[in-house]
Amino acid sequence: MAFLMSAPAWAQDEATIVHAEALRDRAMAGNQALAIVTDITTRFGPRPAGSEAEQAAAAWAADYMRANGFQNVRIETFPLIGWERGEQGGAITGPRPQPLVVAALGHSPATPAEGVEAQVVRFTSLEALQAAPETAVRGKIVFIDMGQMRPMQDGSGYGPQTRVRGGAPAVAAAKGAVAFIMRSAGTDEDRMPHTGTTRYVEGRPTLPSFALSAPDADQLSRLIVMGEPVTVRLFSSARTYETTSQNVMGDLPGRTRPNEIIVLGSHLDSWDLGTGAVDDAAGGAITLAAALTIQAGGRRPARTLRVILYGSEEVAQPTAATGDGGGVYVRNLGEAVADHVVAGESDFGADRVYALRLPPGAQGSAFQQAATRVLYPIGVLASNTPELSGGVDIGPLARAGVPVFTLAQDGTRYFDLHHTANDTLDKIDPDQLTQNVAAWAGLIWLIADSEVDFRAMRPAE
Amino acid sequence: MAFLMSAPAWAQDEATIVHAEALRDRAMAGNQALAIVTDITTRFGPRPAGSEAEQAAAAWAADYMRANGFQNVRIETFPLIGWERGEQGGAITGPRPQPLVVAALGHSPATPAEGVEAQVVRFTSLEALQAAPETAVRGKIVFIDMGQMRPMQDGSGYGPQTRVRGGAPAVAAAKGAVAFIMRSAGTDEDRMPHTGTTRYVEGRPTLPSFALSAPDADQLSRLIVMGEPVTVRLFSSARTYETTSQNVMGDLPGRTRPNEIIVLGSHLDSWDLGTGAVDDAAGGAITLAAALTIQAGGRRPARTLRVILYGSEEVAQPTAATGDGGGVYVRNLGEAVADHVVAGESDFGADRVYALRLPPGAQGSAFQQAATRVLYPIGVLASNTPELSGGVDIGPLARAGVPVFTLAQDGTRYFDLHHTANDTLDKIDPDQLTQNVAAWAGLIWLIADSEVDFRAMRPAE
Repeated sequence: MAFLMSAPAWAQDEATIVHAEALRDRAMAGNQALAIVTDITTRFGPRPAGSEAEQAAAAWAADYMRANGFQNVRIETFPLIGWERGEQGGAITGPRPQPLVVAALGHSPATPAEGVEAQVVRFTSLEALQAAPETAVRGKIVFIDMGQMRPMQDGSGYGPQTRVRGGAPAVAAAKGAVAFIMRSAGTDEDRMPHTGTTRYVEGRPTLPSFALSAPDADQLSRLIVMGEPVTVRLFSSARTYETTSQNVMGDLPGRTRPNEIIVLGSHLDSWDLGTGAVDDAAGGAITLAAALTIQAGGRRPARTLRVILYGSEEVAQPTAATGDGGGVYVRNLGEAVADHVVAGESDFGADRVYALRLPPGAQGSAFQQAATRVLYPIGVLASNTPELSGGVDIGPLARAGVPVFTLAQDGTRYFDLHHTANDTLDKIDPDQLTQNVAAWAGLIWLIADSEVDFRAMRPAE
Repeated sequence: MAFLMSAPAWAQDEATIVHAEALRDRAMAGNQALAIVTDITTRFGPRPAGSEAEQAAAAWAADYMRANGFQNVRIETFPLIGWERGEQGGAITGPRPQPLVVAALGHSPATPAEGVEAQVVRFTSLEALQAAPETAVRGKIVFIDMGQMRPMQDGSGYGPQTRVRGGAPAVAAAKGAVAFIMRSAGTDEDRMPHTGTTRYVEGRPTLPSFALSAPDADQLSRLIVMGEPVTVRLFSSARTYETTSQNVMGDLPGRTRPNEIIVLGSHLDSWDLGTGAVDDAAGGAITLAAALTIQAGGRRPARTLRVILYGSEEVAQPTAATGDGGGVYVRNLGEAVADHVVAGESDFGADRVYALRLPPGAQGSAFQQAATRVLYPIGVLASNTPELSGGVDIGPLARAGVPVFTLAQDGTRYFDLHHTANDTLDKIDPDQLTQNVAAWAGLIWLIADSEVDFRAMRPAE
């Protein structure tokens, strides 16, 4: 005999929780997210911010929302400096000529037509480059090899890599280097480099900058350690151009408190090397499918759900020089940001959700207990975290005071694929994708059909 | 050309950091920990707290420390209520008789000689059991099946399981149940149950309590869901007895500040089903080998290293009814606890260290930067964490005000083995074990040969 009864301790309305469980189970039996991610990645392929492919995907997504009952569907267009990779190449030219597999980093400037050729100076950390005298760097190609990035379930190995990728080219430039190369920020050993954006300095790009595949970084490092001076030639015909990107959004209006808005979504743009399946057609598919699961469940929640598919996440710069969809959304909101009760984004691939991180004040609350009751059976633990900044897309909402949550996805294999040519549809595990939809549908229903106010639950400062 | 030079930002003494790097590399080239863990698991086999095997292992460890140059080696004995498993068994007796693979939980009382036989009432959470009326439970065997535990790198799936294992038997007893069974707290699908201790209530055990292997829990749950009443018979001849356990400890005295003590170590006791290889001969081997690596490095650090191999960790109770080595150590210290500058323990298997968690005040400090310089090359990231409670062994030191750190080990496969008959030497990956020693040797040297004071770095309260 199985007892599945309510405990007085839940405090959430029992009917709301039971319906969340039903939505979870409905989602687990479906495959709508797989259909959406298949459409986006197949019809539009790679979707660099500001490209025709990104614009076409946005138009398709607006049509999809309208056809599926979303209200107030709109496209919010904004100007953008786009970046096109063009052609690229690299080779060791001395002491023994051999090819290198490289990818230019996003917003890296072109080299001259004949390329850049120079001796390589190698460092094993950003600090070592910072400490090096100018005389050791001037006229050379700076190579940073921190060693291979290790897989982590929470993806925490990526931070030290983005610090180098974002900041090292400017440090190298200030010391007179002529180009920058780094070991790919990735956990695989494929002969396939990982791209990703570099940071502008005062609104301008710095050095021609490239990532080497892991086996190429191994090879170059070994050769340098063997002791002879090594020269490398790098080539890139990358260019920037004026264009536009856009956010696509639509609402499922709430029944009794339609002015209280819950934001969910992901970015629609992708890098150019793969087809942006795990980064991040999957996130759009998960959040759209979760909203549609709630709609199909036959009950409208009290609050409004807004799904946003942001433009231009991958090239977002702290200086906003390139525009970013999440920032544009908040700037255009003005005072309406006060209507936003919570925001979440799905942007860490398509593997299973393993943890729920609620805003700090909600940790240990009756709401968290109810969410655990709904999500634990599909493998999601409540996880208490000191602060949540959101991701790139909802970070601007968080900084404007909107509470954010995270449904943390297993990132163990994410950085095998992320920002490479290998980021393609076949890498998505349909069962884990479906579990994501179930977690989102159950949690979003619980928030949407309740009066939970994470802002009022903030710990005293 | 490779630059590996000091940056002014390190703030730690450069010679100390360079020596830490050398110790790390020396450890990576060694295999002393594998020799120690082989000795402990092979010579003594399972080492339940208070058993002759645990006592013999402690005597061996003291001899080992003396033979390897430790000073002030001593065995700290304390009284203990030991627990012996005896014989155990389980079976479905109706509607279709079939055997069950079960393990009694630690400190579970014996059943009558003829066993306990009753209808099973199943719950999917502790809350559901708490909410159930007495009439549904009285005279029955309570079964909690929360579904299979999922692997997590940080082991965070274990908390909800220990909450059930520790507390549910008392809840069931209060409602008149005659025995308690649960799905094993484990991530494997082997026909092998996971033991672990139950919590006493007011100093006394509650119901005869058992874990089912995962396939047995699947089978029993399916049968119950199919709808016929299911009866189960359980048998245990477990007994408790008066005995002693002990902590073993030894010092490598500091050069200039010998009264400042750094505690490292692990527990020497184990569960009885396996040979306690990953839980936790490995931890003793890692910390002993790290201390010996520092000793072999030819420089004595300023501070004293104390390696403690604790007794009776596995059966430690919040009420101290069974005694626990970590608590005994602190009680016997008295005011000398003030000499302890930091404590760490290694008790999460033998897979690689992936993160360093320093006391909150040290996060972002120059010390953390230096530690990152030493540990990042072997795959260890600095991780900022709001508070650290230490583990079971050093928890009492932490509660007495001693700062604690964690070298977090990859727990992804830990709960496949933990507390089962499968916890044996062959499961240890020698390369990952060695990386643990390197991380400990590098970090401990950095602390030991510096004036870093984590107590002074505490954030204001």
